[in-house]
Amino acid sequence: MSAGHPGVGRLARLLPAAAWLRGYTRADLNADLAAGLITAVLLVPQAMAYAMLAGLPPQVGLYAGVAAPIAYALFASSRVLAVGPVSVTAIMVASALAGVAGRGSPAANALVLALESGLLLFAMAALRLGGMVSFLSHPVLSGFTSAAAIVIVLTQVPPLLGIGGTASTASHEIVAAIAAHLGDFEPATLALGAASIVLLALAGRPLPRLLLRLRMPAARATALSRGAPLAVVLLALAAVAGLELDRAYGVATIGAIPRGLPAPDPGFLRLDTWLALLPSAALITVISYVESISIAKILAHRRRQRVDANQELVALGAANVAAAFTGGMPVAGGFSRTMVNFVAGARTQLAGIVTAVAMGAILLSFAHLFARLPQAALAAIVVVAVAQLIDLGEVRRLWRYQRRDAAVLLLTLGAVLVFGIELGLVVGVLASLLAHLWRTSRPHVALLGRIPGTQLFRNVRRHEVETWPHLALVRVDENLSFANIGRVEDFIMAHLARHPRVEHLVLVASAVNDIDSTALAALERLAASLRDAGVALHLAEVKGPVHDLLVRAGLPGRLAPGRIFFSTAEAVDALTGAARAAPAS
Amino acid sequence: MSAGHPGVGRLARLLPAAAWLRGYTRADLNADLAAGLITAVLLVPQAMAYAMLAGLPPQVGLYAGVAAPIAYALFASSRVLAVGPVSVTAIMVASALAGVAGRGSPAANALVLALESGLLLFAMAALRLGGMVSFLSHPVLSGFTSAAAIVIVLTQVPPLLGIGGTASTASHEIVAAIAAHLGDFEPATLALGAASIVLLALAGRPLPRLLLRLRMPAARATALSRGAPLAVVLLALAAVAGLELDRAYGVATIGAIPRGLPAPDPGFLRLDTWLALLPSAALITVISYVESISIAKILAHRRRQRVDANQELVALGAANVAAAFTGGMPVAGGFSRTMVNFVAGARTQLAGIVTAVAMGAILLSFAHLFARLPQAALAAIVVVAVAQLIDLGEVRRLWRYQRRDAAVLLLTLGAVLVFGIELGLVVGVLASLLAHLWRTSRPHVALLGRIPGTQLFRNVRRHEVETWPHLALVRVDENLSFANIGRVEDFIMAHLARHPRVEHLVLVASAVNDIDSTALAALERLAASLRDAGVALHLAEVKGPVHDLLVRAGLPGRLAPGRIFFSTAEAVDALTGAARAAPAS
Repeated sequence: MSAGHPGVGRLARLLPAAAWLRGYTRADLNADLAAGLITAVLLVPQAMAYAMLAGLPPQVGLYAGVAAPIAYALFASSRVLAVGPVSVTAIMVASALAGVAGRGSPAANALVLALESGLLLFAMAALRLGGMVSFLSHPVLSGFTSAAAIVIVLTQVPPLLGIGGTASTASHEIVAAIAAHLGDFEPATLALGAASIVLLALAGRPLPRLLLRLRMPAARATALSRGAPLAVVLLALAAVAGLELDRAYGVATIGAIPRGLPAPDPGFLRLDTWLALLPSAALITVISYVESISIAKILAHRRRQRVDANQELVALGAANVAAAFTGGMPVAGGFSRTMVNFVAGARTQLAGIVTAVAMGAILLSFAHLFARLPQAALAAIVVVAVAQLIDLGEVRRLWRYQRRDAAVLLLTLGAVLVFGIELGLVVGVLASLLAHLWRTSRPHVALLGRIPGTQLFRNVRRHEVETWPHLALVRVDENLSFANIGRVEDFIMAHLARHPRVEHLVLVASAVNDIDSTALAALERLAASLRDAGVALHLAEVKGPVHDLLVRAGLPGRLAPGRIFFSTAEAVDALTGAARAAPAS
Repeated sequence: MSAGHPGVGRLARLLPAAAWLRGYTRADLNADLAAGLITAVLLVPQAMAYAMLAGLPPQVGLYAGVAAPIAYALFASSRVLAVGPVSVTAIMVASALAGVAGRGSPAANALVLALESGLLLFAMAALRLGGMVSFLSHPVLSGFTSAAAIVIVLTQVPPLLGIGGTASTASHEIVAAIAAHLGDFEPATLALGAASIVLLALAGRPLPRLLLRLRMPAARATALSRGAPLAVVLLALAAVAGLELDRAYGVATIGAIPRGLPAPDPGFLRLDTWLALLPSAALITVISYVESISIAKILAHRRRQRVDANQELVALGAANVAAAFTGGMPVAGGFSRTMVNFVAGARTQLAGIVTAVAMGAILLSFAHLFARLPQAALAAIVVVAVAQLIDLGEVRRLWRYQRRDAAVLLLTLGAVLVFGIELGLVVGVLASLLAHLWRTSRPHVALLGRIPGTQLFRNVRRHEVETWPHLALVRVDENLSFANIGRVEDFIMAHLARHPRVEHLVLVASAVNDIDSTALAALERLAASLRDAGVALHLAEVKGPVHDLLVRAGLPGRLAPGRIFFSTAEAVDALTGAARAAPAS
């Protein structure tokens, strides 16, 4: 009873929103209102553009920007993550939809993807798999993101030229489609697209730099820069209306956007589509979650706040389920959008709710005004946004640091371009797992000797040390596992073959934090073999938990005549003394 | 010129046989002759039985026992490994052949598998991938072997009952086929099979135990026990001939065996079959190699000899190519056969050549006498041989040692039984990689404090230590990699959230042997975030090679104001001194 209101505690645990709403001040509200509205300015054009990138009607992106951020806000542990459609998952949705082309409408299939993604996120939360996705290494993620961005840029070439494209996300098929229709390009569309790209590029870095030189405060300069996509949308709308670009010059527009949220689609319920989309949904889920959690963590750490991985799984799951039930597409935390939210001063998820309400208001009031928005303007927004994601310099940086990581990045990038978005990602993940195993399979193994006059034991190759002809001290700087025990055995046997007088071999385990069952079995086998060959296998400096494990497995008995010594020094004292007492036969 | 005969040195490197033939004595020859003949006695019935297990005519097994051991003997670094058809690869061959049923004869496809396997082994040798197969962990191998043995026993039930079976190696299909035909069993076949099994079982352990009690020398008792399969073959032949079991009672026999080696089969050259069989050949290659090298290593260690992994790849490759060109099937080092060879006193691979010559002599002279050998007798030999491979007690042993390894074993075993031999193995390998990663993803992380009056730093949970409110010492007992850096970050952020007065965080890297690029990027990000939050991130006790890596990547500069300290003591002295000089605001 002394624990206060247990109901409130449980509520706060499930709904972190309840925690930050208590103690919420007027200043917080003002900050969140401003940040939420600024974020909406960026989200409106991005949402439509990413929906079209995914092969969906533009309004689907807007739908995904209404209920999803509210659902996320209620459950999120991150204060500033802004969720909605994002570019990399949008191209993954396009890839998934191309795989089930002809089975149900794309919009209905996008709902299935969002719902499956939401349920998978819930399942991961239930299994507490928040840490599992750390299995996506940085090289894989970097290579995948760069390759996806390249594929995205390619998919935007047809709308920028006003030519026919393809629903495929395989890079060679997109290039082939572009090459086939290149002659049909529409000059007006190209001009409009090119002008949009130039405007957006200028607004990206040159504009804020100029504004800062003109003494404008940094926050306002950034906000103006981030408003460029909306400015492009408005200018393009004005150009089409003023010059009749659509009717007179054939510039393709996005067409009528229905007012309000849509009624549920019955296509939702087809089991075969559900099964066919499940693998794609799983990949989208993993990428969405990893992107979101990494942005959330970076920003939380800056304010010394914490992000709860499992709570984020719940919140993102809720966001995707909400998106599915309001006609949307899969959503995640977007990098540029969240940075805008953060820089604009968002303090809590109320900013996200403000963004969502603004989106809803636009849908209910003047979304129909977007009908004559040219597709080329949205394509320009996509191209400029994702071009920043292509980071080939990372290959060079990784190459200098660790070649195997650079190789994994290049392999992932190449696999995505050659095999497509989904298979490419799978290939990259497998390559990174193998590279990781390859690393642990090549442990640093050193022969030790004693630094004269001390109890310190060091690598014989790097130090002047004393050694003993009948005794070998071998230190392995890695956990012993199936991946490396074979090499350790080989090292030991090679040493014994070259030094036939060795009678005692001490494995110094000071850097060993774990011995798996394969390594244990190999040690037992090695001890038996060496015993037959007249060599005793000993262990020294075994850490507490590892020692407990070995005792549980009964290794000490099976080592005999070998022993487990506390320290290397103790082993050397015992074995050099013992050897002197009992000379070799 | 002082290096002697370089030609001879190179020859010795390529053909280890050249090395052991020099200095070869009369005593060696006698030992090898005896061991080779005893091994042949075991190999003849096993070779026929495993060929039939693979879905091939029995003579294919005999063919594989002639040229392959000779080719192996020339290139092998192992002195005693006896190669030929083995049970587990035979069931893998059966599975592969079932996959291409109807495309070419089984015998032709078996040649393709042997040739592909040989070429893959050569490729692995060229790439020096001898260590790569250590990626097959003990739990995977144990689970796979037990499951394969169970499948093998199931496949032998139809010939033991004299009923129709299936070419499938999927356990549920075999069981279904048995159930469908159970009523048709032939009493004479069943009686003959049961009698064979009883004889073989008695000869397995009870016979040598009895002989030893009767004071027979151990080597001779073992040889008699190992001759039981040949005895069963001869008794079964006599029973069929004497009682006309085949003509009068319908006991199925193996049929005529053509004399000599076969002419090459033109079916060899179909590209589509080559491609279709390649994945199976790859799995057979890996399992053959792992089985062979582990037996070879165990026995070599007992005599303090070395086995060269890459040389073994060459020798096994040569053996498989030789098998392919002489009408055989994939070969590997067999456990029981090699043990017989070893116990019988084989000193060099000349014993293998003796075995091969004996096999060839049998094929050229009296192989036709096997025509009336009942299939049930061979099935009995297979069942008794593989029953020893089923080791379910290993699950219990692993469970007590490390549950995740027991889980991997059970998963592999279940996957092979449910999904079949090949997919089951792939599932097991993936599960073991994930389990390995799972382990490294959960590092032991400890907060340290100083044992008063010393320079020793220990876990605050296990020791009475002094700590400082503005300083946190965190030790991670694992290499930092993409698999675990997220957890380390979480640990640090959770600590900082609970201890707002911390201004300096020292990561003690005494157990860190490697930092991959993902972990490096995370550390840089963490340092920047912590700096914004008013906390300096330092490192201490960084090992030499890791320090070089970090310097190359420019981390020291990006840690500022954080530093890299030589020892934890130095860090504490510097940071507690600094804090006293500049009190917290």
